[in-house]
Amino acid sequence: MTLEAERTLRDEELSGLAELAAQLRVDAIRCSTAAGSGHPTSSLSAADLLAVLVARHLRYDWSYPGNPGNDHLIFSKGHASPLLYAVFRSTGAISEQELLETYRRSGSRLQGHPTPVLPWVDVATGSLGQGLPVGVGVALAAQYLDRSPAHVWVLCGDSETAEGSVWEALDKAGHYGLRNLTTIVDVNRFGQRGPTELEWDLDTYRRRVEAFGCHAILVDGHDLGAIDEAYGQAREATGPTVVLARTVKGKGVPEVENDPAWHGKPFDPELAERAVRALGGPRRIRVAGPKPPPAPRAPAPQIRQPELPTYSRGAKVATRDAYGDALHALGAARPDVVALDGEVSDSTRAERFAAAYPDRFFQMFIAEQQLAAAAVGMAVRGYRPFAATFAAFWSRAYDFIRMAGVSRADIALVGSHAGVEIGPDGPSQMGLEDIAALRAVPGSTVLCPADAVSCAALVAQMPDHPGVSYLRTTRGKYPVLYDDAEPFPIGGSRMVRDGGDVALLGTGVTVHLCLAAAEELTREGIDARVIDLYSIKPVDRQRLAEAVVETGGRLVVVEDHYPEGGLGSAVLEALADLGEPARVNHLAVRGLPGSGTPAQQLDRAGIGVGAIVSAARALA
Amino acid sequence: MTLEAERTLRDEELSGLAELAAQLRVDAIRCSTAAGSGHPTSSLSAADLLAVLVARHLRYDWSYPGNPGNDHLIFSKGHASPLLYAVFRSTGAISEQELLETYRRSGSRLQGHPTPVLPWVDVATGSLGQGLPVGVGVALAAQYLDRSPAHVWVLCGDSETAEGSVWEALDKAGHYGLRNLTTIVDVNRFGQRGPTELEWDLDTYRRRVEAFGCHAILVDGHDLGAIDEAYGQAREATGPTVVLARTVKGKGVPEVENDPAWHGKPFDPELAERAVRALGGPRRIRVAGPKPPPAPRAPAPQIRQPELPTYSRGAKVATRDAYGDALHALGAARPDVVALDGEVSDSTRAERFAAAYPDRFFQMFIAEQQLAAAAVGMAVRGYRPFAATFAAFWSRAYDFIRMAGVSRADIALVGSHAGVEIGPDGPSQMGLEDIAALRAVPGSTVLCPADAVSCAALVAQMPDHPGVSYLRTTRGKYPVLYDDAEPFPIGGSRMVRDGGDVALLGTGVTVHLCLAAAEELTREGIDARVIDLYSIKPVDRQRLAEAVVETGGRLVVVEDHYPEGGLGSAVLEALADLGEPARVNHLAVRGLPGSGTPAQQLDRAGIGVGAIVSAARALA
Repeated sequence: MTLEAERTLRDEELSGLAELAAQLRVDAIRCSTAAGSGHPTSSLSAADLLAVLVARHLRYDWSYPGNPGNDHLIFSKGHASPLLYAVFRSTGAISEQELLETYRRSGSRLQGHPTPVLPWVDVATGSLGQGLPVGVGVALAAQYLDRSPAHVWVLCGDSETAEGSVWEALDKAGHYGLRNLTTIVDVNRFGQRGPTELEWDLDTYRRRVEAFGCHAILVDGHDLGAIDEAYGQAREATGPTVVLARTVKGKGVPEVENDPAWHGKPFDPELAERAVRALGGPRRIRVAGPKPPPAPRAPAPQIRQPELPTYSRGAKVATRDAYGDALHALGAARPDVVALDGEVSDSTRAERFAAAYPDRFFQMFIAEQQLAAAAVGMAVRGYRPFAATFAAFWSRAYDFIRMAGVSRADIALVGSHAGVEIGPDGPSQMGLEDIAALRAVPGSTVLCPADAVSCAALVAQMPDHPGVSYLRTTRGKYPVLYDDAEPFPIGGSRMVRDGGDVALLGTGVTVHLCLAAAEELTREGIDARVIDLYSIKPVDRQRLAEAVVETGGRLVVVEDHYPEGGLGSAVLEALADLGEPARVNHLAVRGLPGSGTPAQQLDRAGIGVGAIVSAARALA
Repeated sequence: MTLEAERTLRDEELSGLAELAAQLRVDAIRCSTAAGSGHPTSSLSAADLLAVLVARHLRYDWSYPGNPGNDHLIFSKGHASPLLYAVFRSTGAISEQELLETYRRSGSRLQGHPTPVLPWVDVATGSLGQGLPVGVGVALAAQYLDRSPAHVWVLCGDSETAEGSVWEALDKAGHYGLRNLTTIVDVNRFGQRGPTELEWDLDTYRRRVEAFGCHAILVDGHDLGAIDEAYGQAREATGPTVVLARTVKGKGVPEVENDPAWHGKPFDPELAERAVRALGGPRRIRVAGPKPPPAPRAPAPQIRQPELPTYSRGAKVATRDAYGDALHALGAARPDVVALDGEVSDSTRAERFAAAYPDRFFQMFIAEQQLAAAAVGMAVRGYRPFAATFAAFWSRAYDFIRMAGVSRADIALVGSHAGVEIGPDGPSQMGLEDIAALRAVPGSTVLCPADAVSCAALVAQMPDHPGVSYLRTTRGKYPVLYDDAEPFPIGGSRMVRDGGDVALLGTGVTVHLCLAAAEELTREGIDARVIDLYSIKPVDRQRLAEAVVETGGRLVVVEDHYPEGGLGSAVLEALADLGEPARVNHLAVRGLPGSGTPAQQLDRAGIGVGAIVSAARALA
């Protein structure tokens, strides 16, 4: 339906909104011109949409961003940061001076694209098509876990609807009936380098949105009354709403309106001055929008120490099973722990949590981008999400994980079926680049336990660990190496076997291969120590330094991963920083694997027991 | 519309198809049971769909898979490999013996999921939601570049329609009116761990497909006549068609039909024997499906040496501009070079190619997964695609790049706006993990030129370079360091400045910083050599070994990238393999950046000139 002027606003209210919109435009122009970069025209198109939202619909206590009753405002089109920061100025959250003097400057919290260094920003945006999937996660948590009145408002650009992740998000919004989610699409018809695919074909947008299970409302994005009506309907809707707003890029500055050449360019000072003057000059409007209903402060979750599963030394247990057991134990101990699945919970073993705590388990189906984004969104509402899929398939969500790192989101990701060890399924199913990729996420932690006891101990630490934590598990069953209740601090390691001639360094499955190799080496008179580097990032530098000193600098590093960027690199980077000279023989998966049994795969990849023995012998 | 029995097939034709379908079922069961793993039930649901396709619609010369007139058959649901290989056996492409004795065995070309080690397989599948986007690329090349009668048939699972990439693909299929693309969705209602989100709600599938610009045909996926009619319509359609086939998982084996517990499990020998017997036992049907129309062998493309752009030493040129210039030159010299954009061609500078060769330029809008997949698809048809976006946004397509590596696809990817060097836009726009991620792709090449001359020389080599090649370019302008026509072989490096006290190793922008640092060091009496490691993978081991020997093992590595997995790791891995002991001081972006000018960003990140000087001094 198209809303037209079923006016509920009085003229003075409308003129107040128009004044606010003018202030937002003026401020977006001024701050980007002062910075010498930024996206004023992408801000101008959405200024009316935001003026109505912040003045009349966004329930937000700007003096207390941590209020759990606050609505959420997510700029999925993060490049419209001049508009977002102009909104913040209009609420008094930031000063005019901060806006004009610090936007995009070194050290400023008003960065080129929003990040949560600002207390009113939930997540970093700027990689398009991410704010909405994260918003779905926030809305899931608010509606299903908190039963909070908080509403989630996401501003999307039209260009970003080309990202498949937007449709993963709308699909989940529809599937879960997220009545607390309103997506506002600023259909200004232009992307960065020209017209969008659908331009102003709002009817096609509508059909897509409706086919994906959401309610669509079409509005003129510069008709303040119609926008107001649409938001009112969206807030009251029984499911997710998408407000499709036909807008004009650069609206309010005739010299640049509807001109594709003006993407991502600040106005020069003369144009800015003309435009600001034509818009009526700077204003000092302070918005007093609606406040959230008084929400009783939720009691802090009752967190107990989890009763972790126990295992018998020597029993054969897959670390993915230990993950499932430990997650189940965490579920009992911590109401803030939630789990998310990408349709493989029988493989990752998250199914045990799902069976016991169905209210805290969310199925994202085969949509790994949405899987990662939902975890980030739940972390925004204070939950401790665990999201699991095959290690290989986290590559599908790599941009989302990267941005979670920029957001400093506290999320736990688990990748099962790592390495050639999985056997016959072949390379498409093998995580062989996951360690490299996850290590290169800012602030990340990368863990790869070799046995069930250490796996459970690490899982128990993940909810309280800051940033993106990644745990890699194996498909196959291997002997339990440790006694229950031994400590496995993140950043630590274990010397599983002492020896002074050479150190064999493994992680996950390769620890077992190193142990077998050490046995063989003993028969040759070579005394090998074996170190379990269960924490790959951060890696245990102290242990590495000791090993170098005590073995005369003879190290063999073995990993079920491609040679680039994995455990080998972690060890070499640490040794370089330590200034410890060492001879490192690095065994990794150097060719493209095919099918075969796990044992055949490990041998063919050159990381089997025989290869380790040879590598150690060559150093001795 | 739902097709029902407007029968054009005679009874004996139908019974022939039924016999073939029974053979496909029997063979899928037998090979997976023999292997002890695999997905028989996911194969059984689609057996009728494939029997009709291969016998009556797929125009394919099985004795000459290189025939450019051949249709393409892509199993996006790669886990149904038992069915695909059963099809191959039915055509005589492989023997019954190979099928039964080698499927999923070590060294076999019949891997758990299809890969192009088989000549009839275009691309590796098994990461769901990828076959269709690649099929879009194949269809784009066939329809727009080759004007070939070849039709592209893609078999999708229903679960994988949850992947946003499927909607990116259908959107592009509709946008480009790909009449040569037929998607067959095997709607068997079950994913790996239970019901799919939409189960048998074919009407919702239909509305989604139509909203995305494709023609939908609903069929009973076990009604051979209806399937035949649907395929006939699809082949004659004026746009892309999606055949939505309602099927039963495990169809033909009542003990497992429509049972979610049977995903991904081979039948035990007893069940297999019962099932095969009930299906009428093994057969020796040899399909003689339609052949492609005689297509004159396309003349080999007339490839000339490109007239690369020339630059004056010392002139300031951004490497992204050199990329645009060189790509434009390649376009003139090579009709097989095509370019693809993710809506940022004004930034990556691919726009110059677009303006000159619009027929070979394809806009994928902001859909990086489809961008990578289309490149792979075009490579399938023999083109040399260059696909470019911001370095950071290749992380969005990482799973596709990973699978391109498994496919051994020859594609060139270009990432602009790398590193903190971009300045005020902030971390969301900075490629800071791209080197780590791209190095960990099997068979990949990673290049990062420091100046325009070397950039153009590398771009010129990329079309003939095997595998996934990645080139990283900078936003800013830096002095041209080299003379035109100097060679820059992939795998090489350049010593830009000689010196015996310490070696400063850079890549891209950091080469310039190293040069400035070397000047400062001279004033302190430290004689620094500067090496331009424009080829990060493979890295120039000879040059590194020399540098170690000639500087007494004093190296400073500087990169505009996070510390993990990038140039530093490449150097350390190479030195470890060479057994060259060295002291390496590694400068990289160790914190999360914000906004600022390029110079401020480089300094704050700890990779500026001052930091390099200090690091060199500390080693001296």
